[in-house]
Amino acid sequence: MTALTNPRSDRVKSVRALSRRSVRVGTGRFLAEGPQAVREAVRHAAADVVDVYTTAEAARRFAADIIEPAREAGLFVHEVSEQVLAAMCDTGSPQGIAAVCRVVASSLETVLARGPRLLVLLSNVRDPGNAGTVVRGADAAGADAVLVSENSVDVFAPKVVRSTAGSLFHLPLVIGLDVETTLEALRRAGVRVLAADGAGTLLLPDVDLGVPHAWLMGNEAWGLPEELRERCDEVVRVPIYGQAESLNLAMAATVCLYASAGAQRRDG
Amino acid sequence: MTALTNPRSDRVKSVRALSRRSVRVGTGRFLAEGPQAVREAVRHAAADVVDVYTTAEAARRFAADIIEPAREAGLFVHEVSEQVLAAMCDTGSPQGIAAVCRVVASSLETVLARGPRLLVLLSNVRDPGNAGTVVRGADAAGADAVLVSENSVDVFAPKVVRSTAGSLFHLPLVIGLDVETTLEALRRAGVRVLAADGAGTLLLPDVDLGVPHAWLMGNEAWGLPEELRERCDEVVRVPIYGQAESLNLAMAATVCLYASAGAQRRDG
Repeated sequence: MTALTNPRSDRVKSVRALSRRSVRVGTGRFLAEGPQAVREAVRHAAADVVDVYTTAEAARRFAADIIEPAREAGLFVHEVSEQVLAAMCDTGSPQGIAAVCRVVASSLETVLARGPRLLVLLSNVRDPGNAGTVVRGADAAGADAVLVSENSVDVFAPKVVRSTAGSLFHLPLVIGLDVETTLEALRRAGVRVLAADGAGTLLLPDVDLGVPHAWLMGNEAWGLPEELRERCDEVVRVPIYGQAESLNLAMAATVCLYASAGAQRRDG
Repeated sequence: MTALTNPRSDRVKSVRALSRRSVRVGTGRFLAEGPQAVREAVRHAAADVVDVYTTAEAARRFAADIIEPAREAGLFVHEVSEQVLAAMCDTGSPQGIAAVCRVVASSLETVLARGPRLLVLLSNVRDPGNAGTVVRGADAAGADAVLVSENSVDVFAPKVVRSTAGSLFHLPLVIGLDVETTLEALRRAGVRVLAADGAGTLLLPDVDLGVPHAWLMGNEAWGLPEELRERCDEVVRVPIYGQAESLNLAMAATVCLYASAGAQRRDG
């Protein structure tokens, strides 16, 4: 295998360009950086992996874990120099491995047709770390899908992908949603919508979480606007027992999702 | 009030030097950056605030919220230029305000003498964002104190202080602890120690959290070593209902702490 060694080649530039949203939208591709993301892509979404790039050192280190499974799945594995990989990636040190993947988003209809019990809907969430961590928390809590509004951060941006720690490849994502239309669709599907917001008067431990529901999470700085809260079945507050002003978005979402997961398992 | 305008003055250098651990240890001081941290310092720990530095613009914006309460508490409030504030701070943009504070750490004896119900003990936690977010989560969940091992990140480092979102000033912190000695002291005080670790066989929903207990959280990458886990009363795992490999440290801690807070309030 001849390694790609020219960091200024067209191929390197085209991979690097995936750090720009317009290029991701135009090509329908994004870059998964680092062994955790690439391993989960190969394991759970091999059909959507276009190319794997690895240094010789990483190819040895991740041979059993990533490289062999990738080759067995018929994927293209390209050996590159350290310089080429660094030039391709948004992260300084992606531990020697990255993969170009196809953006595969699900549709709301498909998700709802499966009778979901637990969903999360992000509205106007802008911080990449928070958005990615919510995807990871939703995956951990066994949520059926993550729904993302059109005015939220692009979940295929490098920082979001990194923060999901591979969970991006584990559960359906629906992107580009209009929130009001989505709330109507959820209602018609019999999914209760619970707004998680500091303005809520109902406390999390007092909510019936045994029924199918979606958590609506708003912007990390200013929460959910009143007109959206009013369209939800309940506005729920995570209780603050100490003197903290709030939890951050990812923590609040994870606490809510775990409360839901626990209740749904207790109830059956 | 004459504004400080020279970013190369000795005072600016001495404040900036607080971004170094050795200087914080030597002077017993640290820098709280941004309105949220400074407001919480003034409200909850005014006796430990040495100097407040603010731009003219921030002094107007935070007049009622921070500046007047600071002056009423007899604190020194210094007006500085934007350049001076930027030169003092670790953050690029601390929104025009920062405060030098005294490092006030509590002792384990003091914390235990008060009969704590809920504690968290960080052992070998290295990531500033995770450590700070655990302090914030502990505060939100109403924990009685956060205990920090000698081999963990310095909780007065700029990134940790920022991640606590002011919670650093809300609850007692005990730092520089030897973990084994601390586990013995907790046991003698009748506080059960629950290790939170992916190696646990007991699942979080199955643990009796109504009794006084401390959550022991280990390193974000490799968890808790077996010899420490063996010294705990239980090793508890946050269940993963989906396909995620794990939660990050801050998320796991927050889920555990909220489970504890909920159980202790239900039980009494």
